[in-house]
Amino acid sequence: MIEAKHLAALAQIVGSDNLKSDKAHMIAYSYDATKERYEPDAVVFPRHEEDVSAVLRYCNEHRIAVVPRGAGSGFTGGALPTSGGIVLAVEKHMNKILEIDERNMVAVVQPGVINMDLQKAVEAKGLFYPPDPASQEYSTIGGNVSENAGGMRAAKYGITRDYVMAIRAVRPNGDIIRAGKRTIKDVAGYNIAGILVASEGTLAVITEITLKLIAKPKRKQTAMGVFPTVESAMEAVYKTMAGGVTPVAMEFLDNLTIRAVEEKFHKGLPVDAGAILITDVDGNLPEEIDYQMGVIERIFEENGCIDFKKAQNDAEAADLWFARRNASQSITIYGSKKLNEDITVPRSELPALLKRINEVAEKYGVKIPCFGHTGDGNVHTNVMVDGADPKQLEIGHKAIEEIFKITVEMGGTLSGEHGIGLSKAPFMHLAFSEEELRLFRDIKRAFDPNNILNPGKMAL
Amino acid sequence: MIEAKHLAALAQIVGSDNLKSDKAHMIAYSYDATKERYEPDAVVFPRHEEDVSAVLRYCNEHRIAVVPRGAGSGFTGGALPTSGGIVLAVEKHMNKILEIDERNMVAVVQPGVINMDLQKAVEAKGLFYPPDPASQEYSTIGGNVSENAGGMRAAKYGITRDYVMAIRAVRPNGDIIRAGKRTIKDVAGYNIAGILVASEGTLAVITEITLKLIAKPKRKQTAMGVFPTVESAMEAVYKTMAGGVTPVAMEFLDNLTIRAVEEKFHKGLPVDAGAILITDVDGNLPEEIDYQMGVIERIFEENGCIDFKKAQNDAEAADLWFARRNASQSITIYGSKKLNEDITVPRSELPALLKRINEVAEKYGVKIPCFGHTGDGNVHTNVMVDGADPKQLEIGHKAIEEIFKITVEMGGTLSGEHGIGLSKAPFMHLAFSEEELRLFRDIKRAFDPNNILNPGKMAL
Repeated sequence: MIEAKHLAALAQIVGSDNLKSDKAHMIAYSYDATKERYEPDAVVFPRHEEDVSAVLRYCNEHRIAVVPRGAGSGFTGGALPTSGGIVLAVEKHMNKILEIDERNMVAVVQPGVINMDLQKAVEAKGLFYPPDPASQEYSTIGGNVSENAGGMRAAKYGITRDYVMAIRAVRPNGDIIRAGKRTIKDVAGYNIAGILVASEGTLAVITEITLKLIAKPKRKQTAMGVFPTVESAMEAVYKTMAGGVTPVAMEFLDNLTIRAVEEKFHKGLPVDAGAILITDVDGNLPEEIDYQMGVIERIFEENGCIDFKKAQNDAEAADLWFARRNASQSITIYGSKKLNEDITVPRSELPALLKRINEVAEKYGVKIPCFGHTGDGNVHTNVMVDGADPKQLEIGHKAIEEIFKITVEMGGTLSGEHGIGLSKAPFMHLAFSEEELRLFRDIKRAFDPNNILNPGKMAL
Repeated sequence: MIEAKHLAALAQIVGSDNLKSDKAHMIAYSYDATKERYEPDAVVFPRHEEDVSAVLRYCNEHRIAVVPRGAGSGFTGGALPTSGGIVLAVEKHMNKILEIDERNMVAVVQPGVINMDLQKAVEAKGLFYPPDPASQEYSTIGGNVSENAGGMRAAKYGITRDYVMAIRAVRPNGDIIRAGKRTIKDVAGYNIAGILVASEGTLAVITEITLKLIAKPKRKQTAMGVFPTVESAMEAVYKTMAGGVTPVAMEFLDNLTIRAVEEKFHKGLPVDAGAILITDVDGNLPEEIDYQMGVIERIFEENGCIDFKKAQNDAEAADLWFARRNASQSITIYGSKKLNEDITVPRSELPALLKRINEVAEKYGVKIPCFGHTGDGNVHTNVMVDGADPKQLEIGHKAIEEIFKITVEMGGTLSGEHGIGLSKAPFMHLAFSEEELRLFRDIKRAFDPNNILNPGKMAL
């Protein structure tokens, strides 16, 4: 529990309206998308970078834990105040798009800006910010940067990291750091912006982000391919990429997922198919679209595709995307509790990975529907169990641990886009050696010697 | 001077053939592209990662400075053993392309692989490694990664950092670290690979690099535009990018550079032009090439371009590129000593930057021909002086310092691609605050508490 004098001092810094410690606020800021709950001692709403600096300096001096928070939409507990202390919530005041610089094609935003708001603002100017996590309607850019969020378009356009040009941030000691520049090239000094991306609020508090924008492609087309087996679909995926075509998105649903969506929505999906691939291509010219679609159709067919549909307009595109968009909510027919992991392997390992996941499902007697971003090797594996049954939950967690082991064995990663946070911290030893974990801790200590920033996360 | 017993111990680790301390070797490893000279006490040629680990552990225990070295082609003294100790030269044994994984489109290389050798090897498989520093025929991938090398193609394809997926490296204490994965997405743990890029051999010794490859575009075309003024050319540059076309390269030469190349080679260049732009576009379809060239031609003309030439074949393309390729050697007509800096500003600042550089040239009575990578805001500014005249040299250095100040004022960076090393260390305080320099030092200490790795570089 923070002493009252500290709360008073913090209220002095940010103004008493911007520090809350009533029960309603404590509950509101106690959870994120994991649904786990840890109440903070107070929530502080900084008005600007100077507030962040003063708050951090104070908390650092008095060893008060500080958990930075955007929208609290993370899947791994990164914004949970597990050690109490204060939640530093940027969504209230530090939520402005500061600049859209069309000449240099960059946007400068505060961390609390919602991803979708930025997308809309830049698209209104003919520009494009590609990273589109599924949470884009509510997640913040600060959270996206802290977790290095991915999204549907990563296959062609990469992830959040690829768009971060510069960051302003505050260290726990109050030092304000400008890292990176509004230039494509910059090799002066260490790449501080690079290490702050995906650091999950454990190193510094991000106060401003400069993002690279690109020109918005003029045309887009969607297609769907139905495959007899998951393996044949996965072959088609990497052969498409190697064939010189990089689709914007290349998403897949396995048989269990297809059946779940069909059972729920009766859309006439091919319930006997091994997998469906849904793909988008884009470009400026009709010829580019036709060329890419031509290559994809040919490679799909060479790999056993039994039905190939191209959308001729937006409505048809939305229809082809329907199954993918509703996959996550549909699979709940297999169990009330979804243990959802975002493992990622090198694309070539996808067929083997899905085979091994199937074996795990059989071994533990659970259903594991899979879908996700095959274009970049990122598979959402969902171990479905009865959430009310502790024995089922235990079995589910065992299955997850086995899937993590398989993933690491195949050269993959525990997390493609959700981060480590609290949920995956117990599995870090599967992916990293003692030497590697030691380096993480040394870096943490360099930034935050008193361990006040988001303590207890990432197995640090 | 390293004691004889230490040399013996190091020879024991790597084999006596792989440790040299004779005068000839000391001279050979005493300089880089800066032409400054510092002799090491010994050169060690590690055979593999285990050697690197054992050598570092030993040197760390005995506080012996270790300077990692690729080809020694750096422009800022990064590979110079300014504090003596050993040079750890990877070019002899750790120079192999370990794997070209066509399925996942990645290459795995040892640090001593020459950039051009990698380019050729992957292009033979229809793949493409875009970063092409001017030193590509001799510089190593390890050096490219350590300096975050750029190149001509950065405008469209980015820089070395954008292709580094994973790094194996050894910390000064001997710890072997695997950072990153052969996956597009990976958000588990801190982005260690990201901070090792551009760290100039000060944090760890890189032993293996996994690089992203892309499919090789099937077509390319070159064009040249002649502009009455530098300002009009710079306007054309950023309007092209904002117009939705991202050329592979967008290079410029100013009037002084044009005149120098013409004086030396008599190619019929437009000696009264304010600037020339040379640009490459690429793609898979003829229509894509035509579209991009059409946009460029239109925007160039709207911005005062007085002559626009498109190459119809490789020979014509080489001809258009001639002036740019020979810019660096031609400008020596203005002075025997070239103080060459690779400053970079946001593209929109290019016209103002060039105007200010002109003012500096007038103020100090020196010629400052400029050329370079305008597509990414990176300008090679060359303060030309008589190298034999100390007074001229002093004036030149003052002019450089003033240019650095202007660059930083405009939101630019001291270095777009050459790094800081020794040469730019005195200017770090112009670009970074005390707080920022303190963070760099804290990070350095986290990796290398005894300061044995490339000591004295980067103003750490």
